[in-house]
Amino acid sequence: MVAPAQVLTADPRGGAYYLTDIHESTPEVVANACRLAATAAPEFEAVGREGRARFLRGIADELEAEREVIVASALRETGLPDARLHGELTRTTFQMRFFADVIEEGSYLEATIDHAGDTPMGPGPDLRRMLVAIGPVAVFGASNFPMAFSVPGGDTASALAAGSPVVVKDHESHPLTSALCLAAMERAAAATGMPAGVVGAVYGRAAGAVLVADPRIKAVGFTGSLGGGEALMTLIAQRDEPIPFYGELASVNPVIVTPAAAAARGDAIAAGLHTSITASAGQLCTKPGLVFVPSDAAGDVLVDTLRRLLADTDAAVVLNERIFNSYNDTRDTTAKLDVVGRRTEGREPSQPGWRVRAAVVEVDAAALHGPIAQECFGPFAVVVGYTDDDELDEALDALEASLTATIHAEPEETARVSALSTRLRPKAGRLIYNGYPTGLLVSWAQSHGGPWPSTNSIHTSVGATAIRRFLRPVTWQDAPESVLPIELRDGSTSVVRRVDGQLTIPPID
Amino acid sequence: MVAPAQVLTADPRGGAYYLTDIHESTPEVVANACRLAATAAPEFEAVGREGRARFLRGIADELEAEREVIVASALRETGLPDARLHGELTRTTFQMRFFADVIEEGSYLEATIDHAGDTPMGPGPDLRRMLVAIGPVAVFGASNFPMAFSVPGGDTASALAAGSPVVVKDHESHPLTSALCLAAMERAAAATGMPAGVVGAVYGRAAGAVLVADPRIKAVGFTGSLGGGEALMTLIAQRDEPIPFYGELASVNPVIVTPAAAAARGDAIAAGLHTSITASAGQLCTKPGLVFVPSDAAGDVLVDTLRRLLADTDAAVVLNERIFNSYNDTRDTTAKLDVVGRRTEGREPSQPGWRVRAAVVEVDAAALHGPIAQECFGPFAVVVGYTDDDELDEALDALEASLTATIHAEPEETARVSALSTRLRPKAGRLIYNGYPTGLLVSWAQSHGGPWPSTNSIHTSVGATAIRRFLRPVTWQDAPESVLPIELRDGSTSVVRRVDGQLTIPPID
Repeated sequence: MVAPAQVLTADPRGGAYYLTDIHESTPEVVANACRLAATAAPEFEAVGREGRARFLRGIADELEAEREVIVASALRETGLPDARLHGELTRTTFQMRFFADVIEEGSYLEATIDHAGDTPMGPGPDLRRMLVAIGPVAVFGASNFPMAFSVPGGDTASALAAGSPVVVKDHESHPLTSALCLAAMERAAAATGMPAGVVGAVYGRAAGAVLVADPRIKAVGFTGSLGGGEALMTLIAQRDEPIPFYGELASVNPVIVTPAAAAARGDAIAAGLHTSITASAGQLCTKPGLVFVPSDAAGDVLVDTLRRLLADTDAAVVLNERIFNSYNDTRDTTAKLDVVGRRTEGREPSQPGWRVRAAVVEVDAAALHGPIAQECFGPFAVVVGYTDDDELDEALDALEASLTATIHAEPEETARVSALSTRLRPKAGRLIYNGYPTGLLVSWAQSHGGPWPSTNSIHTSVGATAIRRFLRPVTWQDAPESVLPIELRDGSTSVVRRVDGQLTIPPID
Repeated sequence: MVAPAQVLTADPRGGAYYLTDIHESTPEVVANACRLAATAAPEFEAVGREGRARFLRGIADELEAEREVIVASALRETGLPDARLHGELTRTTFQMRFFADVIEEGSYLEATIDHAGDTPMGPGPDLRRMLVAIGPVAVFGASNFPMAFSVPGGDTASALAAGSPVVVKDHESHPLTSALCLAAMERAAAATGMPAGVVGAVYGRAAGAVLVADPRIKAVGFTGSLGGGEALMTLIAQRDEPIPFYGELASVNPVIVTPAAAAARGDAIAAGLHTSITASAGQLCTKPGLVFVPSDAAGDVLVDTLRRLLADTDAAVVLNERIFNSYNDTRDTTAKLDVVGRRTEGREPSQPGWRVRAAVVEVDAAALHGPIAQECFGPFAVVVGYTDDDELDEALDALEASLTATIHAEPEETARVSALSTRLRPKAGRLIYNGYPTGLLVSWAQSHGGPWPSTNSIHTSVGATAIRRFLRPVTWQDAPESVLPIELRDGSTSVVRRVDGQLTIPPID
């Protein structure tokens, strides 16, 4: 057995690494976490929706109790602002409690009963269908959300809600924060009577590769780069048993400003865009990367305001050295492209650390192809000037799909907004009107997903229905009542069910 | 451009090929079908649920009107019995009408509205979510169901219901039947005002490869062999854009008979098994391939009855030469395995054609591994003798997953049936009690799917929710009413919706 290596962690504000007492997980450690998760699976399912809801709320309480310690750790490891991290912890606990509500409500089970009876094909059996947990899930923590998309994040919350144990592969950017979150979750598991191994975590890139190859893992949730996602897809394709991979990958998040909107409120749009581009140092998967602005007087005013705000923006700390280098490389490469017109940069760093200058470059719609139309992770956006609707439409049709697409228009532009919506819908999972794509509410109606390359999934990774990714259907045919899940037994009124084609809603208490 | 080759079709009853006036689809023909499908997509969605329901019912009517011609063609091309083919056409039209009902009812849209309001994370926007069509779908027709899993089959019906145009790759076993079905569907499309290209078909293996590689295709439905499915998965992995592949592949469909059930009704179970093993010459994906019988006096009686019935079974026509050869090879190879005990065969063919002898071989549970535990497509089953519950459980744990698992037990065996159900659930998508796995009702509660290698999907390919495979979620944020789908507008009562977390059911007319 190889001795586990100590993990280096980093202080992005100082731009330096230091040794921690966290260690890389050996293959034996990964296998053990998977074994424990697989052993926990039937018992975890047996605790039922009530038990799992108690667990999820217990996690929220434990994270809340450790708020100051966890946020302080995240602050040190990520360089993200204090208020943002407090907000993220609030969002993380809200998400845990939200999924507790979702499973208590129970519609997600899709409980369905068809009684035996005659059909045009002859006598039909009694069929009862419900979704059940898929089994242990591997979750890859993201660099940019040390809580909400990491150990206690949305993939974990939705998998646990579904009844699937979770093994997280921690992100290297925040190992100590991950360990604190895992400890809080383990305390909640113990306090609410969950089986050992229902949550676990492993550290290190090599450990991640071992994790997705483990035959006990039945699905993978991932939020990260397109390259990272494709590497995992290749590993998964080598398994004997292919399993679902839910990747949330690359997204340019186009924002379209109509001439009327630019004329009516160009300054306000510029200010909103500036906030959305630079929030969290642009390290958000919904950051607006392409802004389509009319090449007219009002458009010019909008762009000038945006440039002025951006030029006055302090250099921002990014999460790690890799992002620091790749952001600077991309920004510098882009500046040299023939198609780029003006280029505007934020303030130079005045302090040490992995600090980057925000930037906006300008191109004409006709020149929008190749690397300039791809995601650049960080506080960077491309302003795309367009001369008329046709030119804009052509540029939009050529875009890759994104998580979001945003339209700024005036109320009287009904037909144009409809046409733009139709055009953009195949390119995005969320369409935003007169707002900004950053900021993603966890709720029943949320979708965080979109066609390739933004994701590879027909499911969302945020919101109530994210749970569907970790479930599969089972039908019981002519089953004795004693083997049926409670929700499928005659007379049960605990959840919404479809009985002989008719939806029936439980009586209100 | 290469001249298209004429297609050979076969008469399984005579075991010979003859030339038809069908031709292999050239790459140009495939590209054209995909282009038409992509062009049809927005218009097909715009006809709405009512329009698509009318189309699906129109297809059912057109197929019914051509019943005699279609069944006669299928009879000639497949060698399947007349009654079975009439039943299959009835099932196919029922399925079309069923999906019309499903989309009219509208729950499948998952329409969800969260009004703007305060949240713990600050003010939340107005979010409205619905599932929308994924885009053109490629459907691979199956050899063993020339209608119900081919051109007008379940994949096609559910994709059309979802609003996705379909390009079918016809199965080589029944090109003329496929052409007749396509013509009926095209007449229905014209009669109900659907856009050109909403259904299309291509012929030939090479055409199938071109089809799944076409960038306009957004999902693939497949029912066939594990090898065929894996070949398509490899092609799909080479696309720039990965797309969902829904494969229904290999399944051994274990049947467990408890000692008490064998004692109480061994003869009846043997008769039921015999029918299920030999129906449609065993060419059903739910054919019981492994039958676990107690090694005791009652079990011996059951097996003797099954052997007697089987020995008295006429040779049956199989679909094509490939199945004829591979069935005979597998049967002969199996007979030579050391682990095999007795072997029982049905009658020898007394007529020409691709006729095969049914067969049952016997093994001990302890010896059940390797090829003997894999699917053999045709009228073949392995009887597995077990001495006690522990030996049975161990053998079940070692099995690959299937579409179905069946338990025959007596009413008083409550605890044992529960334990068996828990053990089998991770191994199957449908659990059947005191029945037989063949026969698959199209209904709300049906599931036709299971863990790998039976499928690679967390969705069913049969029943109401099969439609979910061809949909993806979209959320509209703060959208003006005019761009929203009708189902998401304020005051709409056409479908079930979740509004601010509460399910609301439309008023009954």
